[in-house]
Amino acid sequence: MSTGVRRRMGVEERRQQLIGVALELFSRRSPDEVSIDEIASAAGISRPLVYHYFPGKLSLYEAALRRASDDLAGRFEEPPEGPLGARLLRVMRRYFDFVDEHGPGFSALMRGGPAVGSSTTNALIDSVRQAAYVQILSHLDVEEPPARLELVVRSWISLAESTALIWLDGRRVPRGELEVQLVHDFAALLAVSASFDEEMGALLGRVLAKETPGGPLDAMIARIAGLPVA
Amino acid sequence: MSTGVRRRMGVEERRQQLIGVALELFSRRSPDEVSIDEIASAAGISRPLVYHYFPGKLSLYEAALRRASDDLAGRFEEPPEGPLGARLLRVMRRYFDFVDEHGPGFSALMRGGPAVGSSTTNALIDSVRQAAYVQILSHLDVEEPPARLELVVRSWISLAESTALIWLDGRRVPRGELEVQLVHDFAALLAVSASFDEEMGALLGRVLAKETPGGPLDAMIARIAGLPVA
Repeated sequence: MSTGVRRRMGVEERRQQLIGVALELFSRRSPDEVSIDEIASAAGISRPLVYHYFPGKLSLYEAALRRASDDLAGRFEEPPEGPLGARLLRVMRRYFDFVDEHGPGFSALMRGGPAVGSSTTNALIDSVRQAAYVQILSHLDVEEPPARLELVVRSWISLAESTALIWLDGRRVPRGELEVQLVHDFAALLAVSASFDEEMGALLGRVLAKETPGGPLDAMIARIAGLPVA
Repeated sequence: MSTGVRRRMGVEERRQQLIGVALELFSRRSPDEVSIDEIASAAGISRPLVYHYFPGKLSLYEAALRRASDDLAGRFEEPPEGPLGARLLRVMRRYFDFVDEHGPGFSALMRGGPAVGSSTTNALIDSVRQAAYVQILSHLDVEEPPARLELVVRSWISLAESTALIWLDGRRVPRGELEVQLVHDFAALLAVSASFDEEMGALLGRVLAKETPGGPLDAMIARIAGLPVA
C-alpha cells in the first residue's frame, strides 16, 4: 500500500488517511477480525504511530463508521423533482451500492456483536435512520407527521435494512429486483395504513397525484386501486 | 415482596424464583437501571446469596432473557386450522401481549446497548426470530423455502419487531389496529414479491385458496386483486 516515496503528512491528513484505510478493511471483513497491526501495515506506518492518532481500535472503528454514516446519509439526498416512486428508486439504488461496497462490515454492524455495540455506534446507526426518515418526510411534503405516518416510514426503513442484510447473506435474489420491490413495499405499507385511517388515505391520495403513469409507485398503486379510502 | 414466613428453597427452585423476580424488574425498566441490590431485596434474600446463584448481573439477565424468549417463542405456536390470516392475527395478538408486558425491557434489548450486546443475548434474539420463521413456514406448508419467500418472511418479522418498538414509544396508535395491519402487511409484501416471480405467485395462490371470505388476509387480498400473477 505504501509507495516508497514518503512525505510527511499533517496530523489531520494522517488521521483521515488512517480512517480511510480502516474503513476499507472494516468493510470487507467483520471488524472483530481486523487487527491494528493490519491497519498499520495497510497504511504503511508503525503500530505505535496508529496509537498516536487513535487510542485504540474502537475509536478508529467509530471514526470509520462516522465517515461511512456520513457517506450513506448523503446518498439519501435526492432533488425534490419528478414522481416520488422514481425518486425513491434512485435512493434505493444508491443504498444497495453502499451495502454492496461495505457488505461484511455492514452485516457485522447491523447484526450487533461485542466490537460494535458501543453507545457511539448505536448513535451513528440511529443518525442514519433519522436522516432517511427526515428525507422521506421532506419528499412527502410533511412537516409534522401523524403517528401513523411516522410508523409506516420508520418501519419501512427497518424493512429496507433487513432486506439488505438478508440479500447480503448469499445474494440469492438480484438486487435490482429488491430495489424496485422496496419501492412497491413502501407504497403497499402506506396503502395498508391508509385503509385504516382517513388522514393516511388523504396523504396517499396526495402521493398518487404526484405520480406519473408507468412510474414504479404507479405500478404498485394500480394494483391496490380497490382501497376504499384512496 | 417477601412474606415473613420463610421456608428453605432448593437450589433450582431458588434459581427459578430469582429469574422470575429479575425478569419482572428487567421488563419494567431498562436493564441498565436495575441493580443486584434491588433484585435481592425484591426476592427477599441478601445480595451475597444472589451471587451464590448467579455470578453477576449479566448471567442473571441472560437467564431472565432465556425464560422470556421461551415464553415468546411459545406464543408463536398456533394450531394449523382455519384461514391463515386468522391464525396470524391470533399470533399477533399474543405477540403484542408479550410486548405490552415486557415493554421497557423489550425496547432496551432490541435497541441494543452496553448491558445487552453479549453474544448470548444476540443468540437468544436470533432464536426467537428463527422460531417465528419456522412457524410461518409450517403454516404455509413449505419445507424448502425459495430465497424470495425466505426474504419476505424474515423481513416481515423485522417489520413486526420495529412496529412493536415504535408502538411502545408513546403508544400513539391503538395496538389492535397494528395487529390487524401487520397481517395485511404480510399479505401485501407477499403480493409484491409475487408480482416479480411466478413461484411466489403460485404460493400466494395457495395461500388465497385457504382463505375464507371476510377473513383478515382476504380483506387485504381483495384490494390487490389486480396482481397479474395471482
